[in-house]
Amino acid sequence: MNANPKFLAASAHVDEAAVQPLPNSRKVYVGALGVPMREITQSGANPPLYVYDTSGPYTDPAAKIDIRKGLAPLREKWILARNDTELLPGPSSAYGRARLEDPGLAELRFDLHRKPRKGRCVTQMHYAKKGIVTPEMEFIALRENQRLEGLDEMLRRQHPGESFGAKLPKIITPEFVRDEIARGRAIIPANINHPESEPMIIGRNFLVKINCNIGNSAVTSSIGEEVDKMTWAIRWGADTVMDLSTGKHIHETREWIIRNSPVPIGTVPIYQALEKVDGKAEELTWEIFRDTLIEQAEQGVDYFTIHAGVRLPFIPLTAGRMTGIVSRGGSIMAKWCLAHHEESFLYTHFEEICEIMAAYDVSFSLGDGLRPGSIYDANDEAQIAELKTLGELTQVAWKHDCQVMIEGPGHVPMQLIKENMELELKYCDEAPFYTLGPLTTDIAPGYDHITSAIGAAMIGWYGTAMLCYVTPKEHLGLPNKKDVKDGIMAYKIAAHAADLAKGHPAAQVRDNALSKARFEFRWADQFNLGLDPDTAKEFHDETLPQEGAKVAHFCSMCGPHFCSMKITQDVRDYVEQGMKEKAVEFVKKGTEIYQKQ
Amino acid sequence: MNANPKFLAASAHVDEAAVQPLPNSRKVYVGALGVPMREITQSGANPPLYVYDTSGPYTDPAAKIDIRKGLAPLREKWILARNDTELLPGPSSAYGRARLEDPGLAELRFDLHRKPRKGRCVTQMHYAKKGIVTPEMEFIALRENQRLEGLDEMLRRQHPGESFGAKLPKIITPEFVRDEIARGRAIIPANINHPESEPMIIGRNFLVKINCNIGNSAVTSSIGEEVDKMTWAIRWGADTVMDLSTGKHIHETREWIIRNSPVPIGTVPIYQALEKVDGKAEELTWEIFRDTLIEQAEQGVDYFTIHAGVRLPFIPLTAGRMTGIVSRGGSIMAKWCLAHHEESFLYTHFEEICEIMAAYDVSFSLGDGLRPGSIYDANDEAQIAELKTLGELTQVAWKHDCQVMIEGPGHVPMQLIKENMELELKYCDEAPFYTLGPLTTDIAPGYDHITSAIGAAMIGWYGTAMLCYVTPKEHLGLPNKKDVKDGIMAYKIAAHAADLAKGHPAAQVRDNALSKARFEFRWADQFNLGLDPDTAKEFHDETLPQEGAKVAHFCSMCGPHFCSMKITQDVRDYVEQGMKEKAVEFVKKGTEIYQKQ
Repeated sequence: MNANPKFLAASAHVDEAAVQPLPNSRKVYVGALGVPMREITQSGANPPLYVYDTSGPYTDPAAKIDIRKGLAPLREKWILARNDTELLPGPSSAYGRARLEDPGLAELRFDLHRKPRKGRCVTQMHYAKKGIVTPEMEFIALRENQRLEGLDEMLRRQHPGESFGAKLPKIITPEFVRDEIARGRAIIPANINHPESEPMIIGRNFLVKINCNIGNSAVTSSIGEEVDKMTWAIRWGADTVMDLSTGKHIHETREWIIRNSPVPIGTVPIYQALEKVDGKAEELTWEIFRDTLIEQAEQGVDYFTIHAGVRLPFIPLTAGRMTGIVSRGGSIMAKWCLAHHEESFLYTHFEEICEIMAAYDVSFSLGDGLRPGSIYDANDEAQIAELKTLGELTQVAWKHDCQVMIEGPGHVPMQLIKENMELELKYCDEAPFYTLGPLTTDIAPGYDHITSAIGAAMIGWYGTAMLCYVTPKEHLGLPNKKDVKDGIMAYKIAAHAADLAKGHPAAQVRDNALSKARFEFRWADQFNLGLDPDTAKEFHDETLPQEGAKVAHFCSMCGPHFCSMKITQDVRDYVEQGMKEKAVEFVKKGTEIYQKQ
Repeated sequence: MNANPKFLAASAHVDEAAVQPLPNSRKVYVGALGVPMREITQSGANPPLYVYDTSGPYTDPAAKIDIRKGLAPLREKWILARNDTELLPGPSSAYGRARLEDPGLAELRFDLHRKPRKGRCVTQMHYAKKGIVTPEMEFIALRENQRLEGLDEMLRRQHPGESFGAKLPKIITPEFVRDEIARGRAIIPANINHPESEPMIIGRNFLVKINCNIGNSAVTSSIGEEVDKMTWAIRWGADTVMDLSTGKHIHETREWIIRNSPVPIGTVPIYQALEKVDGKAEELTWEIFRDTLIEQAEQGVDYFTIHAGVRLPFIPLTAGRMTGIVSRGGSIMAKWCLAHHEESFLYTHFEEICEIMAAYDVSFSLGDGLRPGSIYDANDEAQIAELKTLGELTQVAWKHDCQVMIEGPGHVPMQLIKENMELELKYCDEAPFYTLGPLTTDIAPGYDHITSAIGAAMIGWYGTAMLCYVTPKEHLGLPNKKDVKDGIMAYKIAAHAADLAKGHPAAQVRDNALSKARFEFRWADQFNLGLDPDTAKEFHDETLPQEGAKVAHFCSMCGPHFCSMKITQDVRDYVEQGMKEKAVEFVKKGTEIYQKQ
């Protein structure tokens, strides 16, 4: 019956490598809502650590995974209890119906029995503004706190952050979540047609999140591979996944991904609209685009990138650029505007788009179609003009109670990064910023996960809420699984470095626990507390593979003969002999032989 | 005759992979002094680009490489012309003599016929203070400018930097170099016994440099491997190399490395001194240490890490740390101080050390023995007390006309990095800062080249002159060649991102040229202008291996059907039709449908 071998390959199970629990880790469900966390057990009397877990049921050995059935609809009862949606008889988009009725697609189609739902205004912002704390908000509050209670003072101690105006509370309460959503300073991407998702939040007063892009193109890859990439991405910490497919079967690929994804899924609907007109941008129409929005909203896409800021008058501002318009969405719209010599239909129909977004709770990701594609083009007139427009559109969307985040660049040298954040906060009234890197130099093709992790860490510190990852293959080709993991690792580092710097109260505990393990030569604990236990262990074992070396009080850097860490015990003994006061006094008296000139 | 197979393996040739010129690259020697640069040829009418080249004669097919003979002594005639040194009859250190006379070492020994030299005060700072512009300074001025003249305006254009008080001139003159050296704001590590080195400068008003550590330990590796690592490191851009060997045959390994190195070599002499007392720190004496300094100075080591700031009264300040003292040198000295309950002999004998440094022009790298080994310990009292002491010692060294740089951390969260730089500039009177990273989080063992490249880029921007690389194996094991390259790439990126941000006039041209090539689909040019052409090409070829794809006007990200970059030509055509003024006018009039609320 199923004649597509590529597809079959992923039809029942995910990759075994993606479903094993991480070493010494166990999935726990906290509180009445069952908020998932990963508990990392340590050796000896050291307490377990709880870390944010994006991997969904895949890493829970008790969960039954069947890709053909999809995940359990965790949020369905919450959505139903709100009693503000209707069950549709079937897809309302013409395209969605056509695909459902096409017998030739039977073998590719995910077998979903559930019908799509629709409301009038069912956004988390809508509830928040009315003062309602939703279960999604409660879930998020618990999730963000990461169960710090019970850990000792030294493990919890952290440096004061420098937050540049962000206001991170000591403890995240459901009410705080509600307030941030109502204010538009954070979003919860949670389409009512994606009840399988575990609620998460994107905002500057929360943990910095990362997005991972997947998607096939006309040149490579299959549906099964994309589902595999998604499960792989969330295993390593992707908070959201964008499906940027441009090849055949976009609709079906997306369905499989959403049904199996515990994290919000984002798309760029204009990509699919373009496929519908055979790649001829000038033939795009508002009607085709509108049908695409409804098609995808009813599948459950949680946020849409909409390049409504690429306005006709801004396009000529890019003519003097080194690298013109590098955003695909931006260039599609630019081409349409030029061909018709007309204002973009995304801009002129923006209020109608808002109505669609509100009816399913799809969040806006207002696209930066004019972002710079090179250091040379950073922070130019075209980019800033578009950003200002995105600010205007944010106000329009908020009027409709739509949730909004703002996309940002791109390629920006370090000294110009802060200006991006400051202008975004100013023009877009603190709507969450979601940036691609930025890459801090253009000279390292093959290493752009690093050129951009530098910029991402900095802009995350300054206030960006979500970082869109960049893989080593950026500018060169489509990422494979190794590239996806490398990109995620670089971005988990950037996001965590930003959390430490802005002073998120749940950030430094993991650094403290890991450093304590390192210092006490608890090798396995050190590996397991890290972002990637597998690689850490593998690297260690390259030089000292014996099991004994895992408990050895030395490492291959210095060898057993001499070890700097062992000396600290001597220092502590010395201090216990009452020398500390004496020494401090010595410092204070300033008994230097060499006085400052 | 030579019975050591490990050694034989590297006795005549270096690794073939390390001596091929990079693709489309050619070594050129500029000016009367023959300053080496790498010329990268581009396709079509695009001009060649000249980039800073650390690889020495190894990438020059015209050079005859024989590891057993070492490199030609480029600087010998300059040193002789100064006529302020004497040729010694042989090594003056007891240890140097003993090694030379040991017949058992004959097969391991580099066959150097040249005798060591010594002066009274032969430092570049000494000449600079007297107003003398040395050939070393002239060489450096040309080298730093990177031959920008002749390139068109668009390629040379760059964003204004934010330099935090650094003062980068538009063109580096020999007189500027002299002035910076005299002021102590930069150093030229150039031991008179390392005439093979190509002069380079370390200072905040110059290109940011990177250091690469190599060295065997008691557990692994051989002499031949270390020489291979050195040639590999300079191929990819290491500006200096530190030999941190701690195993057997330190003396002989070092000789082979120095004789074959075109870049300055640094060491931590206390490591070898410790070997001489069988690893028993408490048995170290000033006499053993002094003999080691002379031994290494006469071999030609260009800079010594001296942990003279680890003073007895500071040691108890580390007792409350999460990770105590993590610097090997620092912990050796701490152990000695505690065992004797005495002030460090490095501190009490500092003036005598200065006299030795001045006699050979070995630069100080004042070690940060109390640097933090975890985020928890960053910027603590112990660290800052030591930094202040390093400032006092800088003044003492400068009185002796010794060149000085200051080592810095370590593990520091982003919001605390700037304080490190500011205190260093203040306490150490702008002596060049040389930092290890810093690592911006502890939670990613296996990826510390990335956690630290973030901190390195930032501190480089703030004013750090040289960045000590960190490899992916940091905290886990000794780096192999792949790790060395990965570490260097991360640090070349950090250093270049810092150069862009502080506004070095020769920085952005490479980004501009590469982005132009990228935008014009000149794939080979894009690869070749990058830091690692091999990896860029390999990544591209994974998806589109055919030769034809290298000239194709599309890539695997979007496929041939639609390409954002092609649209720019449409935009340019549109603008040429006179629409630009009209559109700009449109923007100015503010014809928005959605006015800002």
